[in-house]
Amino acid sequence: MRVVATAGQPQAAPLDAFELHEREMPTPGEGDLLVRIDAVSVNPVDTKIRQGAFLPSDQHNVLGWDAAGRVESVGANVEHFAPGDRVYYAGEVERPGCNAEYQLVDARLAAKAPSQLSAEEAAAMPLTALTAWEALFDKLRLSQGDATHRDQTLLIINGAGGVGSIAIQLARQLTGIKVIATASRDTSAEWCRRLGAHEVVDHHDLVANMQQAGHEQVDYIFNCHDIGDHWNNMVTLIRPLGHIVAIAETQKPVDLNALQGKAVTFSWEFMFARPLHGADIAHQGQILATLAAHFDAGRLRSTLSDIVGPLTPANLGEAHRRLETGHTTGKLVLGAMPAS
Amino acid sequence: MRVVATAGQPQAAPLDAFELHEREMPTPGEGDLLVRIDAVSVNPVDTKIRQGAFLPSDQHNVLGWDAAGRVESVGANVEHFAPGDRVYYAGEVERPGCNAEYQLVDARLAAKAPSQLSAEEAAAMPLTALTAWEALFDKLRLSQGDATHRDQTLLIINGAGGVGSIAIQLARQLTGIKVIATASRDTSAEWCRRLGAHEVVDHHDLVANMQQAGHEQVDYIFNCHDIGDHWNNMVTLIRPLGHIVAIAETQKPVDLNALQGKAVTFSWEFMFARPLHGADIAHQGQILATLAAHFDAGRLRSTLSDIVGPLTPANLGEAHRRLETGHTTGKLVLGAMPAS
Repeated sequence: MRVVATAGQPQAAPLDAFELHEREMPTPGEGDLLVRIDAVSVNPVDTKIRQGAFLPSDQHNVLGWDAAGRVESVGANVEHFAPGDRVYYAGEVERPGCNAEYQLVDARLAAKAPSQLSAEEAAAMPLTALTAWEALFDKLRLSQGDATHRDQTLLIINGAGGVGSIAIQLARQLTGIKVIATASRDTSAEWCRRLGAHEVVDHHDLVANMQQAGHEQVDYIFNCHDIGDHWNNMVTLIRPLGHIVAIAETQKPVDLNALQGKAVTFSWEFMFARPLHGADIAHQGQILATLAAHFDAGRLRSTLSDIVGPLTPANLGEAHRRLETGHTTGKLVLGAMPAS
Repeated sequence: MRVVATAGQPQAAPLDAFELHEREMPTPGEGDLLVRIDAVSVNPVDTKIRQGAFLPSDQHNVLGWDAAGRVESVGANVEHFAPGDRVYYAGEVERPGCNAEYQLVDARLAAKAPSQLSAEEAAAMPLTALTAWEALFDKLRLSQGDATHRDQTLLIINGAGGVGSIAIQLARQLTGIKVIATASRDTSAEWCRRLGAHEVVDHHDLVANMQQAGHEQVDYIFNCHDIGDHWNNMVTLIRPLGHIVAIAETQKPVDLNALQGKAVTFSWEFMFARPLHGADIAHQGQILATLAAHFDAGRLRSTLSDIVGPLTPANLGEAHRRLETGHTTGKLVLGAMPAS
């Protein structure tokens, strides 16, 4: 089978380092699915690993952990999937990625893809939707339903990014909370409103903008941006006994003591923590199945913003380049590899 | 009425700065109790404020936020208390403390004292028990009952201190979790065991000691010590998706990023956050009422370790001195002021 890989170790590989390689077709382990890839999406984890973060190893020059495809074959112990099933999943960052014709994935991490979504629309969702779901419902423990959060407010920092775009929808569609998203450009602000944000504020001078909008404090903050950039803003804006969840580490010093006087809780969300540590990983397949039902019922929609093209070295480099600008809205997707 | 106060502003007042002063008898506001103080206890918040922390003001030279006493009179809107009731409470750090003959307290922050405890035994408990309760049940969200935490482990760092001593009991008596407490001296280790700790480990070289005891990781950590001293230990010992709660800020730098890979949650517990910010403060009176029932049923016992003497300037200075050594087990208490 063919893969799109960086040459050798991925440390600090440039954008044009992607090449076509031939690999042996992998054989599913007893709990695995072998999936023929129909579409993939790119995420910051890809560009970070391409630049040498996390787990550099020979295997990791096949990046990509967000896919939709069709089951080609299943391992001996797999019960709920059969060849031909359309599936979607993020997978696990310790195994080779989905920038390939075929990929293995632990069946517990996958779910049947939403039937109303194209492969490209489905491939846009798993990593960010799992992240947003775990952040909102496992970490912040928001209740689904209208009643509990009627008088509460959630601030989503970087609302137009991949995670923010599905977080806005999940919070708006599944809870009764007021959703405030940050965005600074007209197009990204409009994107957030269309996804369901009740209000959009500019993240430049965030505290002043929040106060001007009548929000001295919020009950919850979901920070989808470098936590160092907004640490002091979060300290000011979070209410006493409030809860912050974040996904992006920082190189800037942050003063954890500053949250003490308000007795605040700070949670890290990291989607790959479950598969990396083998912690109840079936939870992620279950979340994806629940999300698929919401997509098919029209309660959620794909955050796909652009299909860069089929999965080729040049298109993958272009998707990485655009992601690294930090100005993409929603998700960038690539289709299946062209026939050889 | 007489009070034991530091002369003037409390900034950096030495241990011998306490003096007897005469103050006007205060008049209860509509939601207040006027309480005749029978016993008080000392906590790190007292020594910190004496040294100039938090909220220096003229009022704050009467320290002490842990008391048992009898209701002398009640405000117009107080419903559930009557003169003569024995009460106990921590109160709120923005109002004058309990190192006095009489004190005002918001009735919502108080409860009837456990009937089976002496005034000294009761005065030892409110601040630390509220802290431990909120940390275990509101922050870590431990379930009461035997089933949920049967296979889980809670590490309590500084188990023999004031908060640790009641946290051990609450976790052991009200949940089915395995409780590991840290202590380094024979007397404090024995104290932790008597309070119900399943195991005690030395906090010097904590990770190695935990591994030797067969605990590579724990589900929950309640850190009752400077978080900087044990930050790296906590990063190593907390399980993926685990939860840490802490009460003591640090002057040392801590690397919040280090908890990201395990997707850990970190909560600050600060008992005075509710009264300071007016956040559902009746919660604290309710907790104290629940605790009183547990004390009276014999499920919990007072962590009083020594009665320093009656409330005099010299005895209060001595209590502060002993607390500042960092080697007290349980709680130090002072009795009522001697008759003038």
